[in-house]
Parts: sequence; structure tokens; C-alpha cells
Amino acid sequence: MLRYLFLIANLLVVLHAESGADAWLRHAPLDEASARQYRSSLPAAVATYTATPVAQSAQRELLRGIRGMLGRTLRIQSGLPAESAILLGTLSDLKQAAPQLRLEAALPLDGYWLTTASAGGVSYTVITAANDRGVLYGVFGFLRKIALGEPVAALHEKQSPYAPVRWVNEWNNLDGSIERGYGGRSIFWDKLQAREDLSRVGEYGRLLASLGISACSINNVNANPRVLAADFIPQVVRIAEAFRPWGVRVALAVDFGSPKTLGGLDTFDPLDAKVASWWKDLVDALYTAVPDLAGFVLKADSEGRVGPSTYGRTHADAANVVARALAPHGGLLFYRGFVYDHHADWTNPKNDRGRAAYDNFQPLDGKFDDNVIVQIKHGPIDFQVREPASPLFGALEKTNQAVELQITQEYFGQSRHSVFLVPMWKEVLDFDMHARQGATPVKALVAGKTFRRPTGGFVGVSNVGLDENWYGNHLSQANLYGFGRLAWDPDLSAQRISDEWTKLTFGSDPKTVETINSIQLTSWRTYENYTGPLGLQTLTDIVGNHYGVSVEASERNGWGQWHNADDKGAGMERTVAKGTGYTGQYRPIVAKVYESLESCPDELLLFLHHVPYTYKLHSGKTVIQHLYDAHYEGADTVEGYIRQWKSLKGRIDDRRYNDVLAQLTYQAGQAQVWRDAVNNWFLRASGIPDAKGRVGRHPGRFEAESMKLEGYTVRDVTPWEAASGGKAVACPVAKCSAGLRYEGAAGWYTINVRYFDQIDGVSRFRLLVGGQLIDEWTAADRLPTRRIDSSSSARRVVPGIALRPGDEIRIEGMRDGGETAALDYIEILPEGK
Amino acid sequence: MLRYLFLIANLLVVLHAESGADAWLRHAPLDEASARQYRSSLPAAVATYTATPVAQSAQRELLRGIRGMLGRTLRIQSGLPAESAILLGTLSDLKQAAPQLRLEAALPLDGYWLTTASAGGVSYTVITAANDRGVLYGVFGFLRKIALGEPVAALHEKQSPYAPVRWVNEWNNLDGSIERGYGGRSIFWDKLQAREDLSRVGEYGRLLASLGISACSINNVNANPRVLAADFIPQVVRIAEAFRPWGVRVALAVDFGSPKTLGGLDTFDPLDAKVASWWKDLVDALYTAVPDLAGFVLKADSEGRVGPSTYGRTHADAANVVARALAPHGGLLFYRGFVYDHHADWTNPKNDRGRAAYDNFQPLDGKFDDNVIVQIKHGPIDFQVREPASPLFGALEKTNQAVELQITQEYFGQSRHSVFLVPMWKEVLDFDMHARQGATPVKALVAGKTFRRPTGGFVGVSNVGLDENWYGNHLSQANLYGFGRLAWDPDLSAQRISDEWTKLTFGSDPKTVETINSIQLTSWRTYENYTGPLGLQTLTDIVGNHYGVSVEASERNGWGQWHNADDKGAGMERTVAKGTGYTGQYRPIVAKVYESLESCPDELLLFLHHVPYTYKLHSGKTVIQHLYDAHYEGADTVEGYIRQWKSLKGRIDDRRYNDVLAQLTYQAGQAQVWRDAVNNWFLRASGIPDAKGRVGRHPGRFEAESMKLEGYTVRDVTPWEAASGGKAVACPVAKCSAGLRYEGAAGWYTINVRYFDQIDGVSRFRLLVGGQLIDEWTAADRLPTRRIDSSSSARRVVPGIALRPGDEIRIEGMRDGGETAALDYIEILPEGK
Repeated sequence: MLRYLFLIANLLVVLHAESGADAWLRHAPLDEASARQYRSSLPAAVATYTATPVAQSAQRELLRGIRGMLGRTLRIQSGLPAESAILLGTLSDLKQAAPQLRLEAALPLDGYWLTTASAGGVSYTVITAANDRGVLYGVFGFLRKIALGEPVAALHEKQSPYAPVRWVNEWNNLDGSIERGYGGRSIFWDKLQAREDLSRVGEYGRLLASLGISACSINNVNANPRVLAADFIPQVVRIAEAFRPWGVRVALAVDFGSPKTLGGLDTFDPLDAKVASWWKDLVDALYTAVPDLAGFVLKADSEGRVGPSTYGRTHADAANVVARALAPHGGLLFYRGFVYDHHADWTNPKNDRGRAAYDNFQPLDGKFDDNVIVQIKHGPIDFQVREPASPLFGALEKTNQAVELQITQEYFGQSRHSVFLVPMWKEVLDFDMHARQGATPVKALVAGKTFRRPTGGFVGVSNVGLDENWYGNHLSQANLYGFGRLAWDPDLSAQRISDEWTKLTFGSDPKTVETINSIQLTSWRTYENYTGPLGLQTLTDIVGNHYGVSVEASERNGWGQWHNADDKGAGMERTVAKGTGYTGQYRPIVAKVYESLESCPDELLLFLHHVPYTYKLHSGKTVIQHLYDAHYEGADTVEGYIRQWKSLKGRIDDRRYNDVLAQLTYQAGQAQVWRDAVNNWFLRASGIPDAKGRVGRHPGRFEAESMKLEGYTVRDVTPWEAASGGKAVACPVAKCSAGLRYEGAAGWYTINVRYFDQIDGVSRFRLLVGGQLIDEWTAADRLPTRRIDSSSSARRVVPGIALRPGDEIRIEGMRDGGETAALDYIEILPEGK
Repeated sequence: MLRYLFLIANLLVVLHAESGADAWLRHAPLDEASARQYRSSLPAAVATYTATPVAQSAQRELLRGIRGMLGRTLRIQSGLPAESAILLGTLSDLKQAAPQLRLEAALPLDGYWLTTASAGGVSYTVITAANDRGVLYGVFGFLRKIALGEPVAALHEKQSPYAPVRWVNEWNNLDGSIERGYGGRSIFWDKLQAREDLSRVGEYGRLLASLGISACSINNVNANPRVLAADFIPQVVRIAEAFRPWGVRVALAVDFGSPKTLGGLDTFDPLDAKVASWWKDLVDALYTAVPDLAGFVLKADSEGRVGPSTYGRTHADAANVVARALAPHGGLLFYRGFVYDHHADWTNPKNDRGRAAYDNFQPLDGKFDDNVIVQIKHGPIDFQVREPASPLFGALEKTNQAVELQITQEYFGQSRHSVFLVPMWKEVLDFDMHARQGATPVKALVAGKTFRRPTGGFVGVSNVGLDENWYGNHLSQANLYGFGRLAWDPDLSAQRISDEWTKLTFGSDPKTVETINSIQLTSWRTYENYTGPLGLQTLTDIVGNHYGVSVEASERNGWGQWHNADDKGAGMERTVAKGTGYTGQYRPIVAKVYESLESCPDELLLFLHHVPYTYKLHSGKTVIQHLYDAHYEGADTVEGYIRQWKSLKGRIDDRRYNDVLAQLTYQAGQAQVWRDAVNNWFLRASGIPDAKGRVGRHPGRFEAESMKLEGYTVRDVTPWEAASGGKAVACPVAKCSAGLRYEGAAGWYTINVRYFDQIDGVSRFRLLVGGQLIDEWTAADRLPTRRIDSSSSARRVVPGIALRPGDEIRIEGMRDGGETAALDYIEILPEGK
């Protein structure tokens, strides 16, 4: 109400609407006991000795954080305050302004030092660093301590980033769409221009800075050459300006054919002097406008992108010609290792996409310039639910590398499913490649520590969008947080990261923290269980939207993500002895573990070996029974998440409580679709029944195609496993109905209606029992398909229905646009089941 | 987010947004334990034997309620179900359809009977009544039992309304404004027409029906004659249609001059046959279009309305001419007893507006037709914070009467202050007028029980608006609920009513119920304490907006609400012995109590007697010290409400939690304005200091007029007590500032800025300390004045400021429109004070 507008503004700190926009930087008021403690010890003043915009951001954030959490406004002072104060600034500025503090330390770039110093009997809390960005990171670190309830008195702590490269990539197209983005349209681009309102870019910069992320590539790696056009530079400048106060530098993804398509040359041959000179002139011009440009990202010779192969040149030739233009300005060139042949001959059992990164890049080790970084996806395929670490990490000794982690949940349920990716990333980063004597985990290799490379580190594909909460799912924010924390310190445990994120995002109530941690930390295994366990990969619609289930989508095509499941067994044989030789790309110690069925871990079994369904796992279970069990276990666990979440009612704000409850409810329904589809497919393929008698049997389920239909016509669904019974009914006219006569026992029931909610219409449905309208709804969800398949499969749960023998149960569907009010089945389940 | 829209609709019962629109009819899910109990005992089916729209509403509401609270959908059956069922219908319809149930009872109109019957070994829950409206009331009663956790098995309960008249009046103007409405624009009218979207009228009808309220007068008693125009009838028809399914009949407020102004006659003399005939024809036409029209409300010869005095006729003549037109159709004529001379001579100490109702109407007792009801405000003045019951209630033996209670908080803080009026109404309704032998409380008199009148009862001036929560304050809804419950059963206690309302509106969590009850049940006394205790009346701006404080506004004018406070004492002498003789209007037993200072209750002392400030109350305190103490106590209690409310965080939804917190925070600030204004006035008038040393002393307060001003100019505020020190500063130019040098101790402080937020602009303010911007805000609240006075007085609370001796504290004001960014004072209070 208008009359309260002012009041609500007045109490902003208390009444803050929890939209998710502030993510983990809510600076929410501490509980009274904690606040009292900090209030009694914190200085009342702040002085800042570095005048750059980044240092000013640091001071502003410190005030904002203290005000939010403790309800106090720090006094901004100049000079050395006569009272206890927080001092901010680079070490050199501080030493100059206040030599009497005798501050001395060796600080690496971007690292920070939280310390305590005194002069004239006054004690100061000092937040300092080698550069202004480090000061900003120090402030975020200091505020995080307070938010987490950690002590900040008498601090003496140095923090420095594990690796120099901590970047995000945003696959944003200039038209405002995002490739593999699930949180709305681009915060950067709209209609081939920088968006008029770039305020979300600044807010995003703040989130990134709070994690120590220092650069962001702002356009899709499948790059539009236009991004390098001279008249486009002002667009890039505007975005760079929005990020700059947060110490986030802009990078661009570039198209390797640009010298020809954009520059008008007759070639883009990297060894052609004209081409080299074109790149140099272009880069010089760009740096004039954006002096702190971080560099370029280049995807070449992959998935339809042109590359050096056009001229018979190597990836090193390609990378170096661009890198040499960047080098004088300190810019980096990230060359993506994601190069493979997506027209591979699937009839050749020796072909293996998994080998491609190594095969393409290992021979070039030592050929890349020092400002080139080969950017390597964490696994050999493409962000599947379970992959081993890419063997390429262990194979480059004289080349800079970065691991590419995907924050956006492309194969992980696209933010409609909650999956916390940190435990998976931890497994990869901590995996010892045995690249030489001593421990050589992936994290050390990419950071350049193992082979003392000048640079390297971590790149996350983030793909935030304009949705208020950035990802379309509050819980998905934890993945960006986790990426950033790991890029800063990969030794942090997943438990610690989840704990931090939950406390910062939802507060420190112990039950809230415990519950959300429990969901987050089990969610990857849960998702794996109901999608593709044992290294089968995600079993998704691999040639389409990467969302719904389609067991065979990865078979019999050139994209190479094969699992070779047939009527005897499943798995891609990648051994040296019998298969593609992929395991031989690892150093011997690792290769030996993977080569042998004995030592191969169960969860990678089918990624590395082809075995019969009756093969016994280390657990003692057969492969087929494990598949069945895992899918039921996964789906049941998501139901459990709903119960867990409901226990938080009143402990967190209604808005996010309701948002997440709706998300988990949807996920639980989708997990059943996955469970049934995968299990039915393997039951049909293997012919081996579920020892527990569940697969293919669904008590209380009535297929729409077996109901009495008026108007509705039966149609086959492709793939068949995407619909129960392989069929659905669709309404070719305006209004149709499907009915059945109930013959079960009298009692209270829940009716689940499984229907299809495509993107090209908003059908309406009505559920009637004995002619009585029980429920009506519309199919208006935002699901990524125009097809009737598992991606559009949706569920309406109608509880509390009294059924009597002889009742007619009827669904009426009213089609709209291209959407045909299609139905899969109904389930009639006793109340509480 | 779009993607969740569908899901949220799916889970509507759980995720229901608590806007307040459903008020006490949320049908929110019961806690699991209660729900389980009802689920195990309630029938699964319902059958309805009456086919009218009202009976259909009853069935729909029953389904909606059971579904909401228990998550179950009842089976709608016809005939007598073979299984246990809930049966709905009028008794005659039920007896005809199911004679085997042998239902027999004498049921009054609108009463209902919840009973249990059986036939053929099957047990039925029966909700029946003499008429369909009674069935609807029975359903609401039945659902209320479930919501309150009361047993509904084996019911045998009859409920009947205490009085036939249970009406609300809505003072809505045809232009969409509402006289004394504080919840937004009219739900009925807009631009001299019935509003295009009348959905809120239907929703309001549902609220009214749930309380047993059966009619609603839909336009202002200061009536626009246009409401009776022939071409306007379709507008009335539309509103009647919106109300009709809820058994709510429409009534109209009419202008007595209509025969002349609208009808074109040369007279509106009630004894003129042309006039009588005009009224008859008009009413006949109206009933053709609205056959269930409930009647008319007529305000004549009052506050500028024309009336029978124009022709020397009596109120009875006026009432009867209209009533006779209504009588053949069963319509009622409510003639308002609110007739007084607002040009009374205030220099004549015998003049007394309090006498007017009795003086005007008592002599006419017996002259009114049987379908006339004299509608009498509960007190002799006009809904002041404390009045005795109107003596007229005890003075009419041969005339129908109704008590007019004001639900809308005209003199009670206009929904910006939370005041639960039921305890006040209870005092009036339970007050024994000693009108004859035995108990003759007001409630019995108005219900017609005492003198066996054919009709009479309760009228509430409701004035709901389009605001989502109807009144602009969630807690204010309790007054409509309380009015309706008292109209049905005035023997209910205030505690019981508050308890019911709280449980229905906010759920049954014991701490929530206890806390809200505690606030509600003390709120009237609290408001009285900080406005006008001891019978001084509200001490508000009586000739203006009736909102802010203005002690002398009721003096020296013809409106007659005088309290005669001067330098010696205060109070309006209304005794027979020494005053206006008002006490003599009561029957002797009552008159005796009021006449004597000995027996007059303290809380009415100054309403009935003029006494010196040093007069000792029964409590032993002097009048003046009581005034001082009460104002501090009232303001402190509101601060306590805030603490109480904050203890409910997480126990109720965020939306309403935040709304009410903001409301109480505002109220607490305003209570201080009242406290200071009234106390300062009486200090100046009496010259007697506060024994506790508080009045006129405000440690930490700095008047704006004493600050260093740039641009701001000092101006006198009228009345002087509306601003601290009697003065404010206003900004005649675009931007001004007021500053001071802080000389107190170093420490943490809260700064309160008291400024003025008028309705004719949105000024901006900034608070700076030592040049540092600490806070900024706009004056954009919806407060009812263009003036700089206590109605526009607003408070900005800025906590957590570290001050050091020598700091410059500065307020900058940027004026806008007619609003001059005016300031009253700042307060610098140690943190936590």
C-alpha cells in the first residue's frame, strides 16, 4: 500500500524483500547476541588511503556490510584517526600515509592481509593488499567473517589466491539470448547492443568480486565476429565501466575467422603476416578504449567454428597469432581445448570423442606462447553427470592451462533441478594425475604450480541472467559461490563451502543450515542416481535440449557420447587392451587403475568398460540391479528433500521458501519421469526384471491411451521411454476428454495427472470425478521444448479425492497454439502414498 | 518467475500469498494433528436440497473450506447419499427430500441448526435453517468450528441471531471517494457509476455473510440525489447482483430533498400528497428492478442536510412518508438520530450537543411507523474515544431503534493506529439503561427485546475500500469481524472475539494468538491514554481531518464537542444541578450515578463534570497528573507492541508481519506526538508541572528552529502544540539545511528526525554527520493533510551513529510541490534508548 512505502524504506534493513538478487551478500542483520559481540569490539571509524574506484568500492561495501549486519554506520575519517579505526588501502599507500604503523609484508597480487597495528596507543584493524583489488577482496573476507560469526578482533591473517586466473565466461549472444543459460535473458546484451540499463552488470561485478573473481568474458564462445568491429567498441566500453569499480576486467570471445569476415582480408591463416598485423591493429585499438581488457577466449575448429585446420595450421599457430597481439598489453588468450570431431564414425569402435582433447593438444605442448592458456573442460566429454578428470591436465608440462568448470546447469537439470556441483568439482580438482613425483592434483596442475607455469587457473561458465535471483533457482546460486571459493582456495571442503553459502544466504539458524547443507551435499549423487549412474553419463537428449531423458540420443550419431548399451550389456570400452585406448592417455599409475575392471571405481565403470548387465559391481550388486535401485533411490531422495525443506517453514522468508518448495516439487515429479524412462529402457534392452519387482509395474497408474477417449488420439512418443507405455494422447481439436471408470476400493486418494507442457501454447485442463469439477489448471510452465517428450512432461498433483467404485474419472483438455493438451497417464494413489 | 507460475498455482493451498484479502476466511491448512482428527471423522460427501444461489454459495463455500483446511474435496451428491454425508438445505426442503430423517425444529429466520440425523443405518451431519441465508450462515459457522479446532462430530446446536437488523453502512460517494474511509477507493463506485469490476463486492459479500450480516447500504448517508434517478437504477442492480449470492441485500442512502431536486416537484414537504406519491412511485420502480432491496437510510436536518424542519414537520413525518412507500415491499427506513445544531452558541454554558439526539427524538416516541428504525450512534456525541451510551437508547419505548457503531476508525487513528473497538462496543451494549424493571442493556433495547419491538438491531459503518486488505491495516479487520459477531451474539466476550479472529486470520499457534490478543485487547485503552483520557474525548482536530491532535479544535465553535479546559480545570459540566442537564436524560438510576462526582466513573469524569486540575480521582491521582501519566503510559505501551510483534517473526507470513510492523512503528512515533502535544498544552494551561518531571523536558531533543539554518525559515505551527516548541522550519527555496554542532559525549546514538510529510509533495531529506551522508529518504507517506501540523508529523529513525564532540549534524531538505521539507526537531538518543 502506498501509505507504507515510506515506512518500508525506513526499515529497509529489517524488511528487505528476499528476492535472491543479493545472493550471499545480503548483509542481513545478525542475531542480537552475535551483533552485540561485534558491536562491542569493532572500531567506529574507517579511513581509506587508496583513492581508486576499486578502493572506494571497498570502503562503500564495508559501510554497507556493517550497517546491514550490525545496524551501525562507520565514521569515514581521513588521516590516521585518533581513535580505533579500520584502515583500508594498498600496503604502499598505507606505509606512506602512516609509517608509524610499521606495516611490512610480502603480499602477492590480489591477496590480502587482515592485521592489527597500533600507533600512539591506538589500535587499528588493517585491511591491506598489494593492489586495490586485494583490498576489496580483504573487505569481503572481513565481512564474511562477521556474517559467519568468526572472530575479527586481533586479526593477523594473510589470504592469497591459489591461482592467478579466476575467470568466468558468459555464453551470452549479442541478441540477448544465452546459450545454456537458465536464468533469463542476458544482463549484458539486447538487440545487438550493450543493454541500456547495465545496473545488473554492476551487481554481478559485486558478486564476482566477493569471491575474488577478476575477469569476465562477456559474450558467447560461439562468437559473433561483430564483437570486434570498430564501431562496436563503445558497447564493450560501457560494460567494462560497469564492472570496473569491482575490479572485474572484461574479456571477449572472438571468432578466428574475423580477419576475413570482419577485416575483409582474403585469409585468416594464422601464419599470414597480414593476418598477424590485422590482429595487432585491432587489439591496439581495443586497448585504447579498454586499457584493462583482460584478454580473449577462442573456440576454434570445434562444433562448426572455423579454425587453423582450414590452412593446415596447428592450434598453437592459431593461439599464438592472437596472443602476440595481446601480449604487449598484458592480455591473455584462452584457447579452448574443447576440440573434437562431431561427425565421428560411430560404427568404428576405436573412435572416441573422449580422446580428442589429449590427441589434439598434447602433441603441441611447449608450442604455445606464455600468454596463451589452454582452457580444458574438467572431463574428457562435456560436463556429464560423471566423468573422470580429463587426461590432458596431466599431459601438458610446458603449456599454461585452466580448468573449465560449468556453473550453469546445462546437463544438470537446467536450474529446474537442484544440484550442488562443488563435490563433483572437488573430486576432479583433488584427483592426482601422477604427472610427476609427489602429489599432482588437477588443481595444482591448472594453477601452474606443478610445472611452474607463469599463469593458469580456473574458468567457470556462469551464464547468469536477468532473473531476479540470477539462475532461476535460489539453490543454484551456491554453484557460483562454490566455483569462486574453489578458484580462490581449492583446498576448502565442499562441506565448508556449503556451510558458508547457506549461512550467508539463509542465515545461521542451525536447523536451516543443517537441512540445506544436507540437501546440497547429497544432490549431485541424487541427480546422478536418477539420470545416469555408473558412468553412463547423463542419458539426456544429447542432440536436442540436453534436458529430458533420451537413453539412445547419444548413440548412432557422430557426437560421440556413446555408452553402447545393447541387449547384452552397456558401457564404452575405453581400455588400451580392448577399446579405444583412452585409458592410455593417463599417466601409468592412473591408467592402470582405470584399465582394470578390478580397480576401476564403480561410478566410472561404464564410462571406461563395456560389461554385461549381470556383471557384479564391487558392491556385490549386478549392474542392472544397481541401475534400477539407483533410479528409485534418486527419485525417493528428492521426495525426501521436499519433506526436509518443509521443515524450514517460518525459519526462512516466505518468498524463497515458496520458490524453492515449488522447484523441489517439480524436480520430484521429473525425477520419476527419469526413473521410469531409464529403468524401462534397460528392462526392455536387458530383458532382466527388477529383483524388487518395481520396474514396469506401477500400481494405480492408468495410461491415457487405454482410457475412453473423446477427441483425443493416441500417438507414439519419441523416444518411447519418454512417456509411460511409449504413448500419449493428443487433442487435435479444440477440446478433448479421456475418462475411465474407477473400480477400486472406496477411500481417499491423490490423483496425479501426467501431461505435457510444451513451450508453444497454454493448454487448459480440467479433472472431473463423477461429473464434479475437482481441479483445473493451465500448462503455462517454461519448459524447453515444443515436443511431447520427457522435457515437457509435467505433473498435476490433486490430493484429497474421495473415490467410490463406479466413479467416472475424466480429464478434459483444451488445446492452445501448438500445444495439444497431451496426456500421458493418471495415477490414483491412496492418500499419503 | 514465469517458470514457477504454474507450480505456485498448483500448490495454491500451501503457497497462498497472505495479502489480507481473505481476512478471516483464509481456510488455511490446519496443522497436521488437527487435520488428521477432522479427516478421520468428517463425511466425504455433501448433498444440497435447496437450489437457490445462496444455498449454492453455501455448498461452494463448504467445499472451499474443507479443501483449504483439510486438503479434501467433498463429493457432491444428489438424493440422500448411501454413505455418511453433510446435508445442506432449508428445513422445509430437507423434510420434503428426506422425510426419513425426521427433522423437526422451530427455527427463526437467519438462524441455523447444526445437527446429526440418521436413516437406514447411515449418519448424516445436517446444516439447516428456516431460509437459505440461514443455511449459508450455518456453513460458515460449521467451518469456523473446524478452523478453531472445535468438535463437529455428533453436533446438536442451534444458533440464532440476537437481532433481526445486522447491517453495514458504507459512506461511499458515487465518485469513488469514501467519507471517513481509510482503505482506498470505493469497491462500489467510480466516476458516478457502479465500478466496472465489481469482484470485490462479491468478496465483501462473502465476508459479510460469514458474520451473518444481511444488508449493506452502499452510498454515503450524505447522499447524492442521483442515486434515486430512474436511469441510475441499472447501476444499483449490478451491485445487488454481486451481493445477492451471499444473501446480502442492498440498501440506499437517500436525500430528503429528492422530490424537489430530482423529481422536479416544488416541494419535499412530507405531508404533501404529491411528495408521498412521488416517493411511492419511485420506490415501486426501484423494487421492480431490485425486488430484494433492503430499504433506505436517511440523514435529515443534520450537518447541512435538508429535512422536515424546512416545512416545520417532525422527523416522524419525514420518516413515515418514505417508510410508507417502502412498507408494501417489506423495506425498512433507517432514520438517523444524528441530528444536532452545529451552529450552537458556545458562549451559552447550557448548550450541549450531547443532548441533541434525546431532545430531538424522545418526544416523537410512538410517532414512527413500524418499518422505521431510528439509527442512534452509540454515544451522544460522535464516536469519540470515550462516551457514555446515548441516553436515547433508554428513552424510546414505542419506536424501533438500532445502534450505529463505527467500524471505520474515523477518530481512532484512521487505520494508521491499531485500535480494537470491541471492548468499547461491549461496554456500551452491556450498559444497563434501567429503562424498566430487570436488566435493560443497550443490546436488548436496540434488538427490540425490552419493549417487544417488531425490529431493530445493529448497524456498523464499515467503509471498506479497494486496498487489498480492505482497511489499510490488517489488524483493523478485527473491527469488522467483531461488529458482525456482536450483531449476531452480543453476549460474546471481547476476549472470545479477539481469539476467534486471531486464530482465523493468523493461525492457532499459541504464542501468536496470545500476543495478538494482548495487543488487541489493550489497544483501546492505550489509544485513549495517549489521545484524550478521562472523558476528554479524542482531542483531535475536530473541525478538520479528525486525525492529528488539536486540543482546542473542539472549543469556541458551534460543533459542540466542548471540553471547556482552561487555566483552572477541564470538563463539560453536564449535570442537572450545575450544567446542561444532560445527565437528566438518563433514567433515574443511571442519572444518579452520573450526576454525582462521587459515583461518576473516572473515565467519564470530564465528559460529565468540570473539575479543577487538582481534583483527585478515585485512584487518588490528581486529574492533571493522570493526564500526564496516561499519555506517557499510552506511548510506552505502543513501543511495547512493537517488541511483542517482533516476537512473532517466522510465526506468521512475512508479508503481513512486515505490514503490521511498519504500521506499529508509525503508530509509536505518532503516539509520542500526541503525548507531547496534549501534555504540553495542559502544562501551559494549568501551570502545574509534571510530578515526574517529564513534560516539557526532552533530553537529547534539538528544535529545528534553534539550529543553524541555511534557506530554512522559522514558522509558527497552528495549533502550537502540534509541533515541538510550537514552531517548525520550512524550506521556501529548492534546498535548505539545518545543522548543529554536537557537544555531547562520544558514543553510539540513534538520531530521530521529526519532519512533516504533507500530501501535496514528495520532499527529500538527507542526514549528514561531519559531512558524511548517513541516510536519505523521501516524504512520500499518505497522510491526510496539506498542513504542517501533527497530522503530517512524521519520524525518521536512524540508528547506529557514532558521534564525537564537535561533529556537525546536518539535515538537508529538498522541497517538492506544496511540501516544504519542513522539520520539527531531531533527537539524539543513546543507542538502545
